[in-house]
Amino acid sequence: MRSFMPTKVFCGENCLILNKHLFKALGEKALIVCGRSSAAASGALDDVLAALTDEGIRYEIYNGVLNNPTVLNAYEAGGKAAEFGADFIIGIGGGSPLDAAKAAAVYATNRIEPMEIYGETKNLPLPVAAIPTTAGTGSEVTPYSVLTIDRENPKVTVKGDHMFPKLAFLDHRYTKSLPADVAVHTALDALSHAVESILCKRNSYISEYIAREAIGILGEEIENTLKYPINPKSRERLLYASMLAGVAITHTGTTIIHSMGYSLTYFMDMPHGFANGALLPPFLRRAEKYAPREAAKVFSAMHLPGIDEFCELISRLLPNIPKVSEEDAEMMANVSIKNKNILQNLWSVTKDDEKAMFLEI
Amino acid sequence: MRSFMPTKVFCGENCLILNKHLFKALGEKALIVCGRSSAAASGALDDVLAALTDEGIRYEIYNGVLNNPTVLNAYEAGGKAAEFGADFIIGIGGGSPLDAAKAAAVYATNRIEPMEIYGETKNLPLPVAAIPTTAGTGSEVTPYSVLTIDRENPKVTVKGDHMFPKLAFLDHRYTKSLPADVAVHTALDALSHAVESILCKRNSYISEYIAREAIGILGEEIENTLKYPINPKSRERLLYASMLAGVAITHTGTTIIHSMGYSLTYFMDMPHGFANGALLPPFLRRAEKYAPREAAKVFSAMHLPGIDEFCELISRLLPNIPKVSEEDAEMMANVSIKNKNILQNLWSVTKDDEKAMFLEI
Repeated sequence: MRSFMPTKVFCGENCLILNKHLFKALGEKALIVCGRSSAAASGALDDVLAALTDEGIRYEIYNGVLNNPTVLNAYEAGGKAAEFGADFIIGIGGGSPLDAAKAAAVYATNRIEPMEIYGETKNLPLPVAAIPTTAGTGSEVTPYSVLTIDRENPKVTVKGDHMFPKLAFLDHRYTKSLPADVAVHTALDALSHAVESILCKRNSYISEYIAREAIGILGEEIENTLKYPINPKSRERLLYASMLAGVAITHTGTTIIHSMGYSLTYFMDMPHGFANGALLPPFLRRAEKYAPREAAKVFSAMHLPGIDEFCELISRLLPNIPKVSEEDAEMMANVSIKNKNILQNLWSVTKDDEKAMFLEI
Repeated sequence: MRSFMPTKVFCGENCLILNKHLFKALGEKALIVCGRSSAAASGALDDVLAALTDEGIRYEIYNGVLNNPTVLNAYEAGGKAAEFGADFIIGIGGGSPLDAAKAAAVYATNRIEPMEIYGETKNLPLPVAAIPTTAGTGSEVTPYSVLTIDRENPKVTVKGDHMFPKLAFLDHRYTKSLPADVAVHTALDALSHAVESILCKRNSYISEYIAREAIGILGEEIENTLKYPINPKSRERLLYASMLAGVAITHTGTTIIHSMGYSLTYFMDMPHGFANGALLPPFLRRAEKYAPREAAKVFSAMHLPGIDEFCELISRLLPNIPKVSEEDAEMMANVSIKNKNILQNLWSVTKDDEKAMFLEI
């Protein structure tokens, strides 16, 4: 069993400005990688620009990261970093910009074709500083970058020890401006990470205590995402728990929820956290049957009596989950069953099982 | 608040042999730093030599680490590493060899006078792989090396992000041959780390959940150290908990227990863990008064009703704590009150307070 998480994490209000000198250690030129609007709206971009200016660091901004970034999208950002001669990359945003930033850092130092990022790359990537503006992805502390490819491979993960960000700044002020629905969806993503980590073959005593802590906090806070605006203490705890859930999956990887969720996102346009949240009830119903001891750990960490109360919680968080047609369920099961995550699931799963789960959401 | 622990940790039986290829990434020549006997007796040295031989790595052994190593002792080991042209250092043993190994790694790459290790050093130390043969120190995951100086400064800590070992291998088979008393003392060291972390000014929600997990396991297992031989499951859990307690103090530092314990070790020849264990009751009695909320967290994590039951536990673990004379208490308080750890204590402490605590053990 291995435990490794080398990212230097800072938490708390103004943690970025208070530690701005750390950027200087990463170099003299930075590429900021973000989406069209959330980095600015969250206030994180302003803090980053102030920090870079104070430290005399030159920068350019690539704000073209798409929701569920494609390989080509990250490749473009990496090209921009190389062209600018960036010494490091600052990713600001939810999972999409952070994952794109981490992949761009690989492209920036390796002259490779876009799809070659899934193989061995020769040079170390540029160092990355990650600044989450949602409380869900955990990408700021994981060695993963999830990129969209095509219909056959909706999302595929680049992974490796070289993918960990060097720095992560978790300031809950940046999640204040999150749209109400995004706050709910991203919190469900974090919950899904922690739950999957426990229901994963690679679960260990190290990953489990981390996941339990995350689930405990999420259990207490997740319904607060329904109250807009979310109070600062809750936002701080949600951001902290989503980071912990990221550390948990760093140890274990994820399960079929993630592979199936990728299909729901790609083919049915469900946001990532929404998709994972919708899949949790059918997943945990099966977990209760095939891995009852582990399922009980999840309910106990959430202080819930069992699966029924868990499903009620999900209904309150996601009152309008669209039904999946027979045809779509069949098609998506055909795709998601091929994902490697299935090997990590605690019980064996067939295509028909996945189809049934899609129909049950 | 910062969280950083970049050591790659492996746990489990044979984890060293299973990951022997990682040594190759550290270089072609290794200096093994250990004490006279425990590295060999534990079986760890045999595993290391087999791994190095398999990987074609040349090595020399410095087995001159003293109990409570002095600055000069570590300096000598560092000189040996430089002379041999070692690319990395493998520390095997309890806290003494691991701390000496970490300091030797600094001396090996920096031409400095022995005491200059407490200042800024120009070059990065050699990478260190740490292999604990006791379940207590946590040194395998901390950025600390505690060295003995003199009467005025019994032990002083070298610290910094450069001090983290690169690799740590936690195989509970290596703690099987621990002498019965050492097993008890080192477990008390781990307990002290976790307790102090919670009773420390820098305690945070991150350090606290780590410390709580460590205390919970230690609470369940610590009396098993009295039964020789200790069963493998308990040894595994103790080793894991001592590592977690190391991560906890990596986040927070320690309190007056450690500074006072250094005096008990230097002047009264008490083993480090014994000294810390002896100080826990007077420390927690005061904590109950001055920091009742934090003290309650400790008792609750141990499933103990309160301080009295905690003191009874310590009496069972350490039935023969030597009394300290008035004169010695005065002298040691004069020394320990100067240690910087006092600044981290949750309540303010005078020399007379420390003297009273020495008299109470």
